[in-house]
Amino acid sequence: MRSALVAVVYVAVFVLTLLVVAPPVTGQVAETARSVVLFIGDGMDDHQLTIARNYLLGADGAFVFETFDHRAAAKVLTVLEADPQVPEYVGDSASGGTAISAGVVTSRGRIATRAGTGEPVSTVLELAAGVGKRTGIVTTSSVTDATPASFVAHISRRFCEGPSGMLPTPTDRRCPDELKANGGPGSIAEQLAVSGVDLLLGGGYTHFDQPDEAGVSVLHRAREAGFRIVRDAAGLRAAAGEPGAILGLFGDGTLPVAWAGENGARARSVEFAADGQVIEPTPFRCVDNPDFGSRPTLEVMTRWALTRLESAPSGFFLMVESASIDKQAHSGNPCGQIGETRALDQAVRVAVAFRERHPDTLILVASDHGHSAQIIPWPSLFASRAEAQYPPGKVARLRTLEGGLMAVSYGTNTHYLEEHTGTQVPVYAQGPGAAPVRGLIRQSDLFEIVRRALALD
Amino acid sequence: MRSALVAVVYVAVFVLTLLVVAPPVTGQVAETARSVVLFIGDGMDDHQLTIARNYLLGADGAFVFETFDHRAAAKVLTVLEADPQVPEYVGDSASGGTAISAGVVTSRGRIATRAGTGEPVSTVLELAAGVGKRTGIVTTSSVTDATPASFVAHISRRFCEGPSGMLPTPTDRRCPDELKANGGPGSIAEQLAVSGVDLLLGGGYTHFDQPDEAGVSVLHRAREAGFRIVRDAAGLRAAAGEPGAILGLFGDGTLPVAWAGENGARARSVEFAADGQVIEPTPFRCVDNPDFGSRPTLEVMTRWALTRLESAPSGFFLMVESASIDKQAHSGNPCGQIGETRALDQAVRVAVAFRERHPDTLILVASDHGHSAQIIPWPSLFASRAEAQYPPGKVARLRTLEGGLMAVSYGTNTHYLEEHTGTQVPVYAQGPGAAPVRGLIRQSDLFEIVRRALALD
Repeated sequence: MRSALVAVVYVAVFVLTLLVVAPPVTGQVAETARSVVLFIGDGMDDHQLTIARNYLLGADGAFVFETFDHRAAAKVLTVLEADPQVPEYVGDSASGGTAISAGVVTSRGRIATRAGTGEPVSTVLELAAGVGKRTGIVTTSSVTDATPASFVAHISRRFCEGPSGMLPTPTDRRCPDELKANGGPGSIAEQLAVSGVDLLLGGGYTHFDQPDEAGVSVLHRAREAGFRIVRDAAGLRAAAGEPGAILGLFGDGTLPVAWAGENGARARSVEFAADGQVIEPTPFRCVDNPDFGSRPTLEVMTRWALTRLESAPSGFFLMVESASIDKQAHSGNPCGQIGETRALDQAVRVAVAFRERHPDTLILVASDHGHSAQIIPWPSLFASRAEAQYPPGKVARLRTLEGGLMAVSYGTNTHYLEEHTGTQVPVYAQGPGAAPVRGLIRQSDLFEIVRRALALD
Repeated sequence: MRSALVAVVYVAVFVLTLLVVAPPVTGQVAETARSVVLFIGDGMDDHQLTIARNYLLGADGAFVFETFDHRAAAKVLTVLEADPQVPEYVGDSASGGTAISAGVVTSRGRIATRAGTGEPVSTVLELAAGVGKRTGIVTTSSVTDATPASFVAHISRRFCEGPSGMLPTPTDRRCPDELKANGGPGSIAEQLAVSGVDLLLGGGYTHFDQPDEAGVSVLHRAREAGFRIVRDAAGLRAAAGEPGAILGLFGDGTLPVAWAGENGARARSVEFAADGQVIEPTPFRCVDNPDFGSRPTLEVMTRWALTRLESAPSGFFLMVESASIDKQAHSGNPCGQIGETRALDQAVRVAVAFRERHPDTLILVASDHGHSAQIIPWPSLFASRAEAQYPPGKVARLRTLEGGLMAVSYGTNTHYLEEHTGTQVPVYAQGPGAAPVRGLIRQSDLFEIVRRALALD
């Protein structure tokens, strides 16, 4: 009898031991996050990242998100509006934002709507709000710009940012069908004003400071819907203790960037001496942008947002975008894009510190599409040839903080802004639900990854 | 007494259970591979891969190595020869090959020697041979080219491929100090001839078919050292059953590539109509290169090598390079580089099938440096502007196998060959010892990863 009891106790303890030491492993361990902070580096691909890393941290450095446990490459999928069965090989912030926010592959320019049909698609921010989570958007662009809009608004054209942008222009058909008079949802700003998002911080005052179809300013609509509106860092600080939703508009459009080249230096076409020889571009450093002013930095906005959302009873979904990695690459301004990558890293560090207090937070760092800048050898690998060897586009030579010389070339457009490129982009993840961020994924898988992490239906 | 015995037995079983169910986890679980197959895609970065994937498999496809369990991004570190403390931000196949083969960050052009001092550094192939493992090199370039040479030879300049390449030219100092008459090891071909490598398959006959300093041809030296020399696919097949080392030289220099553009189409400068409008580049497809001939493909060479090495009593180290992803990107030939990426994938599939029979094999797929090609939108994102918008370099439009149109731009050099670029590059791994391939690593970490996987001292 006694030995039978011992045997039973032994078997029970053995089974319990198994369970404790080696919990059942399934293909998908359900790891639930209370909150998600999703960072988007706009236009941030492996090459743009390497440029910023070399300059800021040295060739052997690493951004904080590059130390995360999980990393994947994401395929940027886009389709033609005219024939959504046919792939397009270069995306934009609207199609990329929609892939991430809603898990849907759409055409360039579309905000959370399907290519061809225009059907609106639910975003992860909306699903999170639907189960009682708090929500927030932080960006260095206009809050109405394509990336933030993709999480909150639904419209056929990204440029329909405010009421005045809805009607056709000579070069763009815009969104007349989506006017409220035509039964539509109105412009992006009008949609944000009634979105119920708990905080929206960025630029884009212009798109709110204008009358809607009824002649009422969108700012007024936002206040009516419960938003407190702040315009500068002091206003943001003052609002910290106040209840209710907040709309922070710290500039008319895109916010100024953190860094610029010394004396405004950026990439430019190669110049030649009278004898036909290439004039070496003068190396330069990056300096604080004197036009930045006293606006809140991305780091400050992110800290404010996380402090605000920390007390959310059911957790939150926060999207934080460093928008001008893209915009400064368009302009061939390496210091601009490096400074905005630094701003992203500083904002991610705030989230990493938050996660130390709240380990049930999933942090994701993603990108919407590739961009133009490339590190090239200077002089050319073929400099020993008699004929001068130089890049056909624009080039800048940077004196990096570790004391090297890095040449950055922009060679995607001759006459205007540099183009997006079609490369796959990196994704980094840390926290509960991060495990599926591995290998090669679709950009649109990020929607499902966030949805599962937050256990949204 | 009895309960004391039961307690002792219980504790013993409990401890054993713990050990069996949860073996001690340390930072580095020692996983030993019997053999390693290391693939190198020369010049293969995320962007070059996306181009090839889009064309071959569609935007949502995946190469076999992209399904591996382990993936990292590798920092390409290079230093200046004149001051090895100062970083260079663009590498080449010599510095990249040496980082991978020997774990040493060196200057461009150096083959398994240190920057500045020229000190030779041991390679993982040499260490593997030292413990009795068989060794092999397979490449689509000359076997004397920088990537294969980095595993077997030690010399200051990659261009010293044969005895005739050792003396200074008007534009290159070459390797006079490394002539045998000066106490040096001789050219790369001379070093390969006495290397004791079990198999060397690729191109480069020219560098062997010439007299050394003593007037004896390097081919003769190789035969003296035990190499059987074959020149074509039939010779390779015939040698399959024969014992001894094999030197397969299937072309004078780099082997012809698998694919070409229809009617020789490649990227070219944008052309203009009489009214100044851009003429749309005609889309084309890729076709078999008519000049490929009856040479063994990379897949055939890889299968031959693995069959040969399968019976190695202590396992083996095999390096397989798809060399002309780089060379065809230099030439602005997208079909060339896509076909060579396809060849790499086909060769990796052979190794994956081998690993099914021999799970104690570690497969790595790496790259030595980034390259020039970028997917750009066509027409431009800014096509609605009055002024024509087009890339300043060369552009090709490809009709992909899934029916899309992909524009590929090369914009790194105006007058001659396109340049390498400085982006980080991907690494993929499957098998014992693959776990450290994660996150952001140094290219030179691959040496240590292979060394540990093979338990080499």
